[in-house]
Amino acid sequence: MQKVVILGGGFGGLLAAQALRGADAEVTLVDFRNFHLFQPLLYQVATGSLAPGEIAEPLRSILSKQKNAKVLLGRAVDLDAQARTVTMRYGEETDAPGELQLPYDALIVATGAQNSYFGNSEWPKFAPALKSVEDATAMRHKILYAFEAAEREPDPARRRTWLTFVIVGAGPTGVELAGALAEIARETLRHDFRTIRPEESRILLLEGSPHVLPTYSKETSIAAERALIRLGVLPRTSVRVTGIDQEGVTLSTGERIESKTVLWAAGVTTSDFAKVLEQRAGATLDRQGRVIAAPDLTIPGHPEIFVIGDLAHVESNGREVPGVAPAAMQMGRYAARTLIRRWAGRPTPPFHYLDKGSLAVIGRGAAVMEIGRWRFHGFLAWLLWLFIHLMYLVEFRNRLIVFIRWGFQYLSFERGARLITAMRH
Amino acid sequence: MQKVVILGGGFGGLLAAQALRGADAEVTLVDFRNFHLFQPLLYQVATGSLAPGEIAEPLRSILSKQKNAKVLLGRAVDLDAQARTVTMRYGEETDAPGELQLPYDALIVATGAQNSYFGNSEWPKFAPALKSVEDATAMRHKILYAFEAAEREPDPARRRTWLTFVIVGAGPTGVELAGALAEIARETLRHDFRTIRPEESRILLLEGSPHVLPTYSKETSIAAERALIRLGVLPRTSVRVTGIDQEGVTLSTGERIESKTVLWAAGVTTSDFAKVLEQRAGATLDRQGRVIAAPDLTIPGHPEIFVIGDLAHVESNGREVPGVAPAAMQMGRYAARTLIRRWAGRPTPPFHYLDKGSLAVIGRGAAVMEIGRWRFHGFLAWLLWLFIHLMYLVEFRNRLIVFIRWGFQYLSFERGARLITAMRH
Repeated sequence: MQKVVILGGGFGGLLAAQALRGADAEVTLVDFRNFHLFQPLLYQVATGSLAPGEIAEPLRSILSKQKNAKVLLGRAVDLDAQARTVTMRYGEETDAPGELQLPYDALIVATGAQNSYFGNSEWPKFAPALKSVEDATAMRHKILYAFEAAEREPDPARRRTWLTFVIVGAGPTGVELAGALAEIARETLRHDFRTIRPEESRILLLEGSPHVLPTYSKETSIAAERALIRLGVLPRTSVRVTGIDQEGVTLSTGERIESKTVLWAAGVTTSDFAKVLEQRAGATLDRQGRVIAAPDLTIPGHPEIFVIGDLAHVESNGREVPGVAPAAMQMGRYAARTLIRRWAGRPTPPFHYLDKGSLAVIGRGAAVMEIGRWRFHGFLAWLLWLFIHLMYLVEFRNRLIVFIRWGFQYLSFERGARLITAMRH
Repeated sequence: MQKVVILGGGFGGLLAAQALRGADAEVTLVDFRNFHLFQPLLYQVATGSLAPGEIAEPLRSILSKQKNAKVLLGRAVDLDAQARTVTMRYGEETDAPGELQLPYDALIVATGAQNSYFGNSEWPKFAPALKSVEDATAMRHKILYAFEAAEREPDPARRRTWLTFVIVGAGPTGVELAGALAEIARETLRHDFRTIRPEESRILLLEGSPHVLPTYSKETSIAAERALIRLGVLPRTSVRVTGIDQEGVTLSTGERIESKTVLWAAGVTTSDFAKVLEQRAGATLDRQGRVIAAPDLTIPGHPEIFVIGDLAHVESNGREVPGVAPAAMQMGRYAARTLIRRWAGRPTPPFHYLDKGSLAVIGRGAAVMEIGRWRFHGFLAWLLWLFIHLMYLVEFRNRLIVFIRWGFQYLSFERGARLITAMRH
């Protein structure tokens, strides 16, 4: 019986575990969270459309019937590549911390990415980002609180500061956030206040590149910019942020934007385990901290260690595989199948990425999509986005509830999960 | 135009605000949370059945169309009963704290109750209670984490400590929690673990009185005890807790119960504003800290100050009105109508409580109910409980989603909101 340890229960790790169903292996999935998170919809939690529980599903439930898979709650912190053991750390407030050694025959590392503020250690305090459920509820708190504070603020200048929202970074997450914020301000909250007019809020979307959605074609980026402006978002491109504090942001031009609500969508880096692989298994990291993988997704010199998902730098068809959910899923499935083939003594082909296209949503009825040379934007792309996301949501029950919520919301502009709970950083 | 300030957006305060709809009044509702919480279902959040957003609704949405009502986020901290102004405090991490003076012609105080540990300041840390959304998610965290820790614990004695759950207090909340916990352990998590058997957990329900549900008749209490035992809960009555720490509880008998998960359902006291009314408006408090109200729910000497809901000590038909949601709602409506009559120069009758009976749920298909001299228990009472709670849930959309969730859950024993997010105290 082969011992397979999988680190991380995101799209890559979970699919790897599932693809080992029925295999003659003992699978241990380690995550410091007890749930799989449907990250592409996290911005909907941050903007009050969905409750956290609606885009998360306990890993144990998902793997409940797969008897060869075991889930452990903890964080992988070290590796002995010679002895083939991973050190997992556990414990929290009510529990004495401790460590567990997990022996493996094969290790699949899928610990993903984390927020990066490019070394500005003060910024996270003022500008929450969007990687975890806690990030999302903190962001939701900040957004909703701003309107509350504006409602009681008698000074017009300060009220304007409360009603100015700055989103740093216009990749897919920044664009989605900006579009959703515009809808909140212009529709959802329109009748809820007596002193302020939420629709007078300013939503600024800052981007260092010349266009929003810089990884898309220029044509698509321009379509996205037009759609954003129609929704009431002001995209400001070719600007860099040099400072963030409690009262706003400073730009590279010296310009100052006064805002109580700055949201960070500008950067991610790999999780800390990449460095462990560098130090303990001789892996090479690229400039963004990703682990450079061989064509079969293993680390050179360690055919028993796979790196997949956002953590991995992988090339396929001569191009870098992007850090998106479908790629992570393909890698997870590939790693598992490669192991099964190997155990059976069969040859293992290299990883091949099947590009299913890129899709970014901008707002109600507006999205952009690129598949190969095809480009869509507008309502059709949005319908496709809706369909794909519903289909991918892991669990039937969640899918149905999300569907109902979205249906109501589309018709009513209401948002059902607008709770300001305790701030958690 | 009369200025009415309402403190607290629970059942009492919200109903008071709504009953002033159309009145020639300027209504200001102050709450330190932006949402109305359906507290009777909070235990379902704590046990992972419902997401917080499903039992909460933003106060602004509820009052969105009532143009004479304004909502302010903040906490009432002081009162000048002569000048007729309330001091509201606001502010938090990202916002400089400040105060606002709210003048009123009539004041309705509905600030409710808070957790009480009878002066044991160490206990809250070890035994979370169940009053707020944060309480509920902290409790959910603690419960789910215990099973996770047990799964990786090799020592059988310590594993048993992780799988021992102690609920202190067997009022309706304690009984509901115990029943839900039993279902989680015996059904929901049954197939999710590989090392432990969740159904071997011990669930102890401690109560100082001779029977569980001490405010109910002895007959009903005994029926409830039988139902609990059938579900696998061990009710231990006539015992007092004298110590709680990280490793368990100590009883008045000297007995020690080792448990990593102690939940507090034993005591509440009134919110801090009761003391403000005592000091600033000459109100009298009863032994439990509640404000003693005149038959028209005002404070003697201050016909412009009403006290309603869990904060108030009210007598009707020669008996104390219980601290339940229907009573708070009736009081809220009464206070508003009394004001409207008064402004019209019409006489105002005293408050009369219409007892709609008491209802406590024990578990799947099991509840107890008392209406006057009628007593139900079993499946019929449970169906009634289900029906009443669905009907009372404030908002149509939430009601529908909760209904779907419950339907799935009833059939599948699954729970959809089993997230372990960051611990928040």
